[in-house]
Amino acid sequence: MIPFFAYNWQVRDEWFDRLQPVSHEELIRDRTGGVGSILETIFHIVHVEYSWIQAAAGVTVADPDYNEYNQLQLIRQLSDGYRPFIQRFLENRSAEHDLRLVTVPWSTETLYEGEILRHVIAHEIHHMGQLSVWAKELDIKPVSANLINRGLFVQ
Amino acid sequence: MIPFFAYNWQVRDEWFDRLQPVSHEELIRDRTGGVGSILETIFHIVHVEYSWIQAAAGVTVADPDYNEYNQLQLIRQLSDGYRPFIQRFLENRSAEHDLRLVTVPWSTETLYEGEILRHVIAHEIHHMGQLSVWAKELDIKPVSANLINRGLFVQ
Repeated sequence: MIPFFAYNWQVRDEWFDRLQPVSHEELIRDRTGGVGSILETIFHIVHVEYSWIQAAAGVTVADPDYNEYNQLQLIRQLSDGYRPFIQRFLENRSAEHDLRLVTVPWSTETLYEGEILRHVIAHEIHHMGQLSVWAKELDIKPVSANLINRGLFVQ
Repeated sequence: MIPFFAYNWQVRDEWFDRLQPVSHEELIRDRTGGVGSILETIFHIVHVEYSWIQAAAGVTVADPDYNEYNQLQLIRQLSDGYRPFIQRFLENRSAEHDLRLVTVPWSTETLYEGEILRHVIAHEIHHMGQLSVWAKELDIKPVSANLINRGLFVQ
């Protein structure tokens, strides 16, 4: 599972760099699809990943408020701040944990840990696909979605 | 790895259903981002998945020609036809195969099997994210990218 998270984080960080020169006005402009603007979509990715991993770890904390993070740099800081917790969670698990049952605060259902992790992975890749369309509309070269040649496996 | 492929196939089949009533003209219209049109993007997903899995299995066959498959129904048949081979390949492997070295006909590099499989998974999810934006532009409800509650894990 770790290579997928490492992939998502590499792609996410490249998007932070790529969007750096884009005006704030364009970043908050409402777009077709996704959860609204480019900025809100990235905030959504960052926050959803952390919420699920926290829930899987049995930790309950308040959700961040988008209005307090509606700047690219602030979302990047949020993303950087969340990472060590997620990294530790992933390093301390093994494939057998996939079938561990988890309940999350926002649902009455019982879920498998493996299902949650795969959901989080797919969730980010899906939204990054949307971002790539919006970037093209802005004449920005999208970040490559290629997973190969990112050094995710031991060479 | 199987739950991710099963997820992609469920989402893909739902897109085939969802796009059924859309005119051929809209399906082949050139779009921003992706590999061109909706139809060509789905053909690309189907064909890229099969090519990589075949290469990982050490099989060499000719690539399909898009011009012979530029109808939604034909691409669906292609997708259905490819599936048993991929399914068998996935069922006959285990996590240890992730570190098996593979060479593919279109590259001089040596890749890990685990890298190839993850690339194929991410590749489809990424393009489905693009499809969801284009669907919204066409006023079509996008297929849900949710991975949870799809019965991918034993209940």
